[in-house]
Amino acid sequence: MTKRGWTGEIRILPLAVDGEIRPGDSLSGRLLAAAKRAQLRFQDGDILVVKHKVVSKVEGALVALDEVRPSAWSRAWGRRFGVDARVTELALQESRRVVRQKSRVLITETRHGFVCANSGVDVSNVDGGRHAVLLPEDPDRSAGRLRAEIKKKLGVEIAVVVSDSFGRPWREGLTEVAIGVAGMRPLTDYRGRRDPHGYSLHATVDAVADELACAAGLVCGKLAGTPACIIRGFPYRRGNGSGRELIRPAKYDLFR
Amino acid sequence: MTKRGWTGEIRILPLAVDGEIRPGDSLSGRLLAAAKRAQLRFQDGDILVVKHKVVSKVEGALVALDEVRPSAWSRAWGRRFGVDARVTELALQESRRVVRQKSRVLITETRHGFVCANSGVDVSNVDGGRHAVLLPEDPDRSAGRLRAEIKKKLGVEIAVVVSDSFGRPWREGLTEVAIGVAGMRPLTDYRGRRDPHGYSLHATVDAVADELACAAGLVCGKLAGTPACIIRGFPYRRGNGSGRELIRPAKYDLFR
Repeated sequence: MTKRGWTGEIRILPLAVDGEIRPGDSLSGRLLAAAKRAQLRFQDGDILVVKHKVVSKVEGALVALDEVRPSAWSRAWGRRFGVDARVTELALQESRRVVRQKSRVLITETRHGFVCANSGVDVSNVDGGRHAVLLPEDPDRSAGRLRAEIKKKLGVEIAVVVSDSFGRPWREGLTEVAIGVAGMRPLTDYRGRRDPHGYSLHATVDAVADELACAAGLVCGKLAGTPACIIRGFPYRRGNGSGRELIRPAKYDLFR
Repeated sequence: MTKRGWTGEIRILPLAVDGEIRPGDSLSGRLLAAAKRAQLRFQDGDILVVKHKVVSKVEGALVALDEVRPSAWSRAWGRRFGVDARVTELALQESRRVVRQKSRVLITETRHGFVCANSGVDVSNVDGGRHAVLLPEDPDRSAGRLRAEIKKKLGVEIAVVVSDSFGRPWREGLTEVAIGVAGMRPLTDYRGRRDPHGYSLHATVDAVADELACAAGLVCGKLAGTPACIIRGFPYRRGNGSGRELIRPAKYDLFR
């Protein structure tokens, strides 16, 4: 399915969960309860976008900061820049490579291959600084599980995107990116197609899963207790897809 | 206005224009006609997102490729990598600095300060390869003009975002970014605020104008004749804003 000739509206429908999400909770159960309270019913072709933090929480991807033993390097870094050496230590443990390190900023390549600050290790919106939350072990698998559970419970085929907020070079502010994907192709490739004037489109691959994550970011706020939303009306291409397709291979990357 | 406690739906309403947009056309007139055909009425608080290409077209930011005289450097580059030397020449003319050059890819800093491929010079969706379209001379001014014209014609206060599709390091595919902004603050700053657990949010600035541009990118397709959309229901912070606020100053940038 493509965008050609398609003139429909897209809706972004927030899912506000009731109370805290904890390790071992059924995330699909919590989100279905949220949908029910909002008088929403999942429909075939919906896209469920979920912030990774609640995924990590239910999967137990949490670390008690008291139990982290920072290395000498992490302690020195923490002292020098006034950052928590335990978070730095976790960021290094979760990384396979440091891409940049300068003053407070530590940009790493995570063991999944994502390039982001502190390997995505985050202490906000967890429990006031006692635990850090890590990225899910396999965000595609997390997305696939949610998709399968919703299919099983409701009988509808949806796509799922697990998102995180990443910084980026050259531009200020964070935007959402898709780190896990299920049930859709995350990239739309226009190469080889022609525009209405017959001009061949050379370099046009759209990161639709990242654009969906950003759209979701408009309602899934940092402070709103809304960790997920349904995006309805976007004609995505169904099929197997992975958040890893959105990672540029290092050998083609000019900034690594 | 913030996201706190806000649980509403966001709608993305495409505006499909009838026929080609040409230099000298009234863009606000064309978009209002598109809205009318779609039985849409602009409302106070709407955000109009417009792809820069139609802005550049009405403003006459077009160059006949036949009249471009490529330098020896551009000709050599074009021969070596099989790219159009005239487009390379324009990209260099529109730039104030080359950030990276490798095989076919030329990443520049435009005279506005945006870092992107080929200074945003584009030949697709223009007229089959005879003209190239440049970025608008002052995208904020373009956004401000649209905002003022719609206020004058309809009496409603809206925000306007002018967008373009940029590539980015580390990730595959293009996503939309806001290059011009009017009537809203493009960044939402959570620093100094606390999450529901009392943890202070350190590094959390959201590039909401870029997320709005991405949301719009879901309907403003490369091939669909839909250069603009209305985003309704997002509680943006009103006020003066500029697309330049989204550009990280070179001295804080680790990748320039």
